[in-house]
Amino acid sequence: METSYKAYKALLNKLSDINYSAAVLGWDQEVYMPTKGADRRAQQLSTLSGISHELFTAETTGTLLEALAKDASLNEEEQANVKETARSYKDSKKYPTEFVMLMSRTTSEAFQAWDKARKSNDFSVFAPFLQKLIDLKKHECKLLGYTEHPYDALLDQFERGMTCKQLDTLFDEVKRELVPLVKQIAACKQNEHAFLHLHFDKQKQWDFGIDLLKQMQYDFESGRQDVSSHPFTTSFSAEDVRVTTRINETDLSEMIWSCIHEGGHALYEQGLKADNYGLPSGEAVSLGIHESQSRMWENQVGRSLAYWKKNYPTLQGYFPEQLKTISVEDFYKAINVVQPSFIRTSADELTYHFHIIIRYELEKALIEGSLEMKDLPAAWNKKYKEYLGIDVPSDAMGVLQDIHWSHGGFGYFATYSLGSFYAAQFFAQAQKDIPGLEAQIEKGELSNLLQWLRTNIHQHGKRYNPNELCKRVTGEELRFSHFLAYAKNKFLPLYGIDNK
Amino acid sequence: METSYKAYKALLNKLSDINYSAAVLGWDQEVYMPTKGADRRAQQLSTLSGISHELFTAETTGTLLEALAKDASLNEEEQANVKETARSYKDSKKYPTEFVMLMSRTTSEAFQAWDKARKSNDFSVFAPFLQKLIDLKKHECKLLGYTEHPYDALLDQFERGMTCKQLDTLFDEVKRELVPLVKQIAACKQNEHAFLHLHFDKQKQWDFGIDLLKQMQYDFESGRQDVSSHPFTTSFSAEDVRVTTRINETDLSEMIWSCIHEGGHALYEQGLKADNYGLPSGEAVSLGIHESQSRMWENQVGRSLAYWKKNYPTLQGYFPEQLKTISVEDFYKAINVVQPSFIRTSADELTYHFHIIIRYELEKALIEGSLEMKDLPAAWNKKYKEYLGIDVPSDAMGVLQDIHWSHGGFGYFATYSLGSFYAAQFFAQAQKDIPGLEAQIEKGELSNLLQWLRTNIHQHGKRYNPNELCKRVTGEELRFSHFLAYAKNKFLPLYGIDNK
Repeated sequence: METSYKAYKALLNKLSDINYSAAVLGWDQEVYMPTKGADRRAQQLSTLSGISHELFTAETTGTLLEALAKDASLNEEEQANVKETARSYKDSKKYPTEFVMLMSRTTSEAFQAWDKARKSNDFSVFAPFLQKLIDLKKHECKLLGYTEHPYDALLDQFERGMTCKQLDTLFDEVKRELVPLVKQIAACKQNEHAFLHLHFDKQKQWDFGIDLLKQMQYDFESGRQDVSSHPFTTSFSAEDVRVTTRINETDLSEMIWSCIHEGGHALYEQGLKADNYGLPSGEAVSLGIHESQSRMWENQVGRSLAYWKKNYPTLQGYFPEQLKTISVEDFYKAINVVQPSFIRTSADELTYHFHIIIRYELEKALIEGSLEMKDLPAAWNKKYKEYLGIDVPSDAMGVLQDIHWSHGGFGYFATYSLGSFYAAQFFAQAQKDIPGLEAQIEKGELSNLLQWLRTNIHQHGKRYNPNELCKRVTGEELRFSHFLAYAKNKFLPLYGIDNK
Repeated sequence: METSYKAYKALLNKLSDINYSAAVLGWDQEVYMPTKGADRRAQQLSTLSGISHELFTAETTGTLLEALAKDASLNEEEQANVKETARSYKDSKKYPTEFVMLMSRTTSEAFQAWDKARKSNDFSVFAPFLQKLIDLKKHECKLLGYTEHPYDALLDQFERGMTCKQLDTLFDEVKRELVPLVKQIAACKQNEHAFLHLHFDKQKQWDFGIDLLKQMQYDFESGRQDVSSHPFTTSFSAEDVRVTTRINETDLSEMIWSCIHEGGHALYEQGLKADNYGLPSGEAVSLGIHESQSRMWENQVGRSLAYWKKNYPTLQGYFPEQLKTISVEDFYKAINVVQPSFIRTSADELTYHFHIIIRYELEKALIEGSLEMKDLPAAWNKKYKEYLGIDVPSDAMGVLQDIHWSHGGFGYFATYSLGSFYAAQFFAQAQKDIPGLEAQIEKGELSNLLQWLRTNIHQHGKRYNPNELCKRVTGEELRFSHFLAYAKNKFLPLYGIDNK
């Protein structure tokens, strides 16, 4: 058996070929697959993931990685790649096949039950399946191992090194700062935003979205946009990175900010080094950092006044009747309305984080056993009242709203908030590093910002873990103060509140 | 190791999962893939085909098949499946890995050379690569083995059991009958067809194509149509069978008959038994039989007067300006013009077969060594003069026109003609078996014909070889006389010639 770095690269290329092939099937499934193709497609995807898992967890992989760990001829980047793969190999080996199969079967059943429960607004239909998943996840925490809190094992899968201890501290600060800020805003007169719900033609919306992606310098020779019911980004190499959007003819916001958001994810993937295909140095760091890219484009850039000074005239050109009497300043106010609501995916930039914190706290309580399944809906509603001041009208609009738990996705809601906070911190740094950034955005010149992201974040792939990367880019670890400053600077003036 | 029929089915399902996954990637490559994704896609496809080949040719597969060959508990269909897989396994094992890799490398180079040669109209650029391919194919004939003629080994890959001896007899008859028929037509006044080259809006053409596919009962819940530069059909199971078309705004014919042609292929794939996924009984018999389905729908149905009596008013509805003064009878004449030409893919129903015979005769001569590479272009041009009476203006429009040879595709052009002849024979039988078939077509009622095809051909998959199937369906082996009768009945009246 060959134990060279070349053999390692060949193995990782082969694994990526299989995994990216599965991604193509997944993309097609969401975008173009005819309905009756679903069952066989699920089977095909399961076969590919089985082949990939088997290949990666083979003893020969372990032998190869051990040999390379002792190979003094490797350069620093090569060593980092091998180390990262070894970490991931070690994790993969912790899962017995029976566990993987049981998890797969349970999530299939749980998804069906969740779908039914939500449609019939009946939590009791989902509860026993969610309980099974929690039990399996508890077991998974043991398999993976942890030092302080079992939930740390789940967090680490999505955000390397993240712990409950860090998150608790962070989220305590978030609550301390954002609860009064949101209350302060709620006491003000709400800004006008009804005009965003006039009728906006599908094709024109689509064309405008393409304009925005081009302006962001999303490379259409290395990607494409299609329509799907839930917008997403997927990639099959750094040279084939695809986005999807959805278009709602009575809500202009959906298309615009899903385009910019997914465009931000896609720029990250397109900015990975193509030659590092399959290697950790050719893959995104973490979900949190990934989300920082989408959120920065969506919010710091895409909901700024400067951005719309450039793009609003174009939008008015597409929709003169609907927008001719609305000034860019009023448009800017409308797209930045802050208002507590029930549904996470349509929440504004500030209240969004309460949706996340609630999910994080409940997941953690379920995993550590301090919350019983039967008490979950009441706990959910109590927290919505406490943090957002609203009464959840039904479980369908409450505890049953997200698909994630039914897929066994515990431990990654937090990365959405982390992404926003990283975004604010990175953008603050970019503002320091790029003189005249706002003026550039106002002219639609986004290449310096993109170049800054490429240099500081994209090109490194998994070379550094999220904490290290954040320190390298901004000189300090993740701090909520950057987001808070951004939020106050932006939203207080929008509601005519003095920013003392 | 388990040697049950269940284990056999599991293996064949897994193989199909991999092969159909590759087909999804292939479909995407032709239809939606952004340009820069090409290199990694080629690598991903090659990895999947490698995994599939390795799995199929493993010694364990041989052991399993041997055990099942002796298993008396299998029913007739199960035995037929095992036998067919064993045949295919035996063939696969004949290829040494080095040969497969050398062939793959050579075809890659040959394709580049062919592309360059065609663009520069310079056969000498392609000749050395074509020679390499011929040498490899000669070697392949030896690897596969044959009884009479080396080329038989190549034919057998696409049309089980077909031999040069059979084809020579068949094609001699074709030439004997069709050369004078085409000459007779050429002496007549040509029918008017210039109006097919007016401007026809893309979207309207697309909509009409969808109408036609629906009328054929192509199931859009188990498939979809997209646009690609070369129309094709592909399938990922009997429940996900996709077609593509191309639309030329100044040639109405391209979209219409590519839609019907690919629709015919797709109905075959959708008619395979979904439960037989992965098994020989769930796969199409042969290229010739596959082509019989596309050609029958395209020609016997789709170029008949009855068909257009139903559909021409709809077409006129889409294009009133272009077609209002053209009667259905004149339209029928225009779409059935017979005229010798240089390019195979745009040839009419009759002269098409000379294009095929020329390629067959030249391939055979190259493989048996009776024709030297340097003499190929002259031999090509000589045959075009002899069979079609035309002077080939350039190698680009002559010997360099097809992509097939550069891909190493030797031995399957013949299946295109076989398909036409099978189509005529099957359709003649369908006319006997379905009373009032023509009247049904005239009303757009195509379900009895489809049902007849489902029952007699589609549902059997590879259960019978092409010869056996033809005998079962029509009571006799393939005979050219059915095509000839069809051709005379159709084309002589179209040109006002007495059919004595």
